[in-house]
Amino acid sequence: MTNAAVEQTVWTRKHLLTLNELSPEEILYILDTAESFKEVSTRSIKKVPALRGRVVCTMFFEDSTRTRMSFALAAQRLSADILDFSAKISSASKGESLRDTARNIEAMGVDIMIIRHSSAGSAFELTQAVDCCVVNAGDGQHAHPTQALLDLFTIRERKGCIEGLNVAIVGDVSRSRVARSDIRGLIKLGANVTLVGPPTLAPRSFEHFGARVTSKLDDILPEMDVVSMLRIQQERTASAVFPSLREYVRLFGMNAERLKRCKPDVLIMHPGPVNRGIELAADVADGPNSSILRQVANGLAVRMAVLFLCQQAAAEQ
Amino acid sequence: MTNAAVEQTVWTRKHLLTLNELSPEEILYILDTAESFKEVSTRSIKKVPALRGRVVCTMFFEDSTRTRMSFALAAQRLSADILDFSAKISSASKGESLRDTARNIEAMGVDIMIIRHSSAGSAFELTQAVDCCVVNAGDGQHAHPTQALLDLFTIRERKGCIEGLNVAIVGDVSRSRVARSDIRGLIKLGANVTLVGPPTLAPRSFEHFGARVTSKLDDILPEMDVVSMLRIQQERTASAVFPSLREYVRLFGMNAERLKRCKPDVLIMHPGPVNRGIELAADVADGPNSSILRQVANGLAVRMAVLFLCQQAAAEQ
Amino acid sequence: MTNAAVEQTVWTRKHLLTLNELSPEEILYILDTAESFKEVSTRSIKKVPALRGRVVCTMFFEDSTRTRMSFALAAQRLSADILDFSAKISSASKGESLRDTARNIEAMGVDIMIIRHSSAGSAFELTQAVDCCVVNAGDGQHAHPTQALLDLFTIRERKGCIEGLNVAIVGDVSRSRVARSDIRGLIKLGANVTLVGPPTLAPRSFEHFGARVTSKLDDILPEMDVVSMLRIQQERTASAVFPSLREYVRLFGMNAERLKRCKPDVLIMHPGPVNRGIELAADVADGPNSSILRQVANGLAVRMAVLFLCQQAAAEQ
Repeated sequence: MTNAAVEQTVWTRKHLLTLNELSPEEILYILDTAESFKEVSTRSIKKVPALRGRVVCTMFFEDSTRTRMSFALAAQRLSADILDFSAKISSASKGESLRDTARNIEAMGVDIMIIRHSSAGSAFELTQAVDCCVVNAGDGQHAHPTQALLDLFTIRERKGCIEGLNVAIVGDVSRSRVARSDIRGLIKLGANVTLVGPPTLAPRSFEHFGARVTSKLDDILPEMDVVSMLRIQQERTASAVFPSLREYVRLFGMNAERLKRCKPDVLIMHPGPVNRGIELAADVADGPNSSILRQVANGLAVRMAVLFLCQQAAAEQ
Repeated sequence: MTNAAVEQTVWTRKHLLTLNELSPEEILYILDTAESFKEVSTRSIKKVPALRGRVVCTMFFEDSTRTRMSFALAAQRLSADILDFSAKISSASKGESLRDTARNIEAMGVDIMIIRHSSAGSAFELTQAVDCCVVNAGDGQHAHPTQALLDLFTIRERKGCIEGLNVAIVGDVSRSRVARSDIRGLIKLGANVTLVGPPTLAPRSFEHFGARVTSKLDDILPEMDVVSMLRIQQERTASAVFPSLREYVRLFGMNAERLKRCKPDVLIMHPGPVNRGIELAADVADGPNSSILRQVANGLAVRMAVLFLCQQAAAEQ
Repeated sequence: MTNAAVEQTVWTRKHLLTLNELSPEEILYILDTAESFKEVSTRSIKKVPALRGRVVCTMFFEDSTRTRMSFALAAQRLSADILDFSAKISSASKGESLRDTARNIEAMGVDIMIIRHSSAGSAFELTQAVDCCVVNAGDGQHAHPTQALLDLFTIRERKGCIEGLNVAIVGDVSRSRVARSDIRGLIKLGANVTLVGPPTLAPRSFEHFGARVTSKLDDILPEMDVVSMLRIQQERTASAVFPSLREYVRLFGMNAERLKRCKPDVLIMHPGPVNRGIELAADVADGPNSSILRQVANGLAVRMAVLFLCQQAAAEQ
């Protein structure tokens, strides 16, 4: 496929909801677009006029300062105007439905809505209510596509490619939208995915995604090119999903000792924020194998690409 | 009056507090200005540099995400810088008076203050404290002039004119600043206004505004060109103002059945957010007679006009 | 020293943490830069492109609407993009350390962090975690350098110079970061500083800063050129630091009676917000000797200067 053909055909979606519906070509097209935007961040004037006069609305019904800031910065860098709809002080609390709220916000002239919501399917629901672009910034345990895209971007940047890599995702896979989106994206691009955790957190049912499931972290580490550590929700440790935090750290925490079992150039990833000393030891988090801050930086470029491509597709429809 | 004469003389106010003090010519001049700004919203770059380098401060001492967002978007579209003064995390909570707070904010170089406050008269009070422009975004049960202006704009847009129209306002008129401002504006522009509700919500004392008052909705519907449904504050239904919500819906709710009693081209309005199934049935709210989303869209154009005209008048003084 | 030499050498710092480490020349250079920015605020388009495409992040872990607004306006006036990191809805509440939070925010491409924190030393700590510019907007009881700079700017503007002036600082000196920073700056620029309050609030230990300490306000007033009244934290009056609020007002409150003991052109300052009738009577706060609103206005110019100079120094490194 020539570059020109790609330009003409690859991206025609005005929404980004999950990676499920994307073809490998579409995913790679986002990553390529993000690469060209990454260059913008190295300039002294870090702005392009791509979305000038467009309005981006962040609608976060669940707190996530980092993700909201990353999207806001991405929109600013594209010269868009930004509006924040904070659910807690809104008419949503007066019993108005998401649909009504969204249609009202759209009527004000919003071009792109970025939604974070605790219910799986909220982003899709939004596309049924409004005509503007919708970007899913995390819906329940369902999907978090821009996190997966920035992970893919970071892996490709550090490893040169994704196809054929051995990637482990370690921790509370079952309740993680990041894991679900990562698995989809990695497998579409040809990586071999291994999910690691106690059966309560990494259940065998995930094999239907095409991933391998195991509870033996130490056994699989030597063959891994990438190990992504999920955040342990400490507020859940009192529940019955694993015996104790100490036990969890002993079996599934990444630390200097365990790092020695890995390939020397293994990439250690984490979606943040890190529980230092729990799923990830501080020295590994700050060490040369860690890509944590690079993931954050790449998130900006990936989100610029997503906002830009969706808006462009909408304008051409 | 020629257009040129209008340009020279009509608008000289740097504040917008209520519609009471405005002449019909002044109201129409705002609506005409809003019409030219509405065109801006259809462009791909929805911005004009009219307020570039000016600072607009939203001062919302009462929550209202929609109104605040609408003003913020209007200001952004005029290229103004926007500052939000959120009362809950401010020195207002340290016992500082509105006057002191406002004078301090003005000293930072704010050009226009947009105030929402639970006390009637707060916007006027503010004009006594500061020299900059003040726009009332709703003060207690007193006035909400930009809501009335967007209602007038929407009626004129859909009906061609306002003079001679029969307009009903249905619901909790007595505690509604929207109703008070609508009544003023409609009567100034020559509409016949009928207020409808149980005597506890639509008391006969409102006749002194020049409106008719009745409790018989079904009787007056056939002659109406416009029916504006007010939001029922459900938190008040436990009080003694009406027997039960069910009874209220039966007597004063707008639904498909009742819509059949109206002229085919009746305009159904609502200031939002709608309690679907209470004052307004869902199918009517979403039906062809409803102007709810158009009201929201027009709110932006009207607020752009108000900010622009007040700032221009201030600059010329 | 010629102007050209100043341009080349005086300001090379990318952080502003306290006035302690600044030379008199550096302080004066900020004030001179602020003067040229003050002119911008008199234009109809109050913007310069000095920080266009740069990102300024306000990180307020302690509420201070005024200071945050002043910095945000200063950044907007320099055409920077602004991001607010609100600690209460952030991952800081998920147990992440300041260091981790800051490194993540920096990874998003932030150029300047403005930090307000309840712990003394937080701003310095931040400089150890990140490479971007750090501006201290108040850390515990330690320092509030931009407040001191705007006080110095205001005194110089009204009095022509600072050297040789007699300046009193009255009130809760011991717990005030404003007082600490004012004392440092005033003494560096050659003023004679007198601290006034009951020994619990103005302890003799402050003499080591080079200031005089006394509890007799009326005795020292006649010789003062400037009297700066500190805010009394009313929530502390129940404690043992002074017998009663009434007693405090009688002995240390500035009022019309006491003003008569001062030089006719004495400058009465206050960092705001004022407790009217407590440390400062309303008629004095609003009278011709008061510089309260001028301090607020000058704060903007001083903060523009600080952001501009730090960013410029960082860019040259």
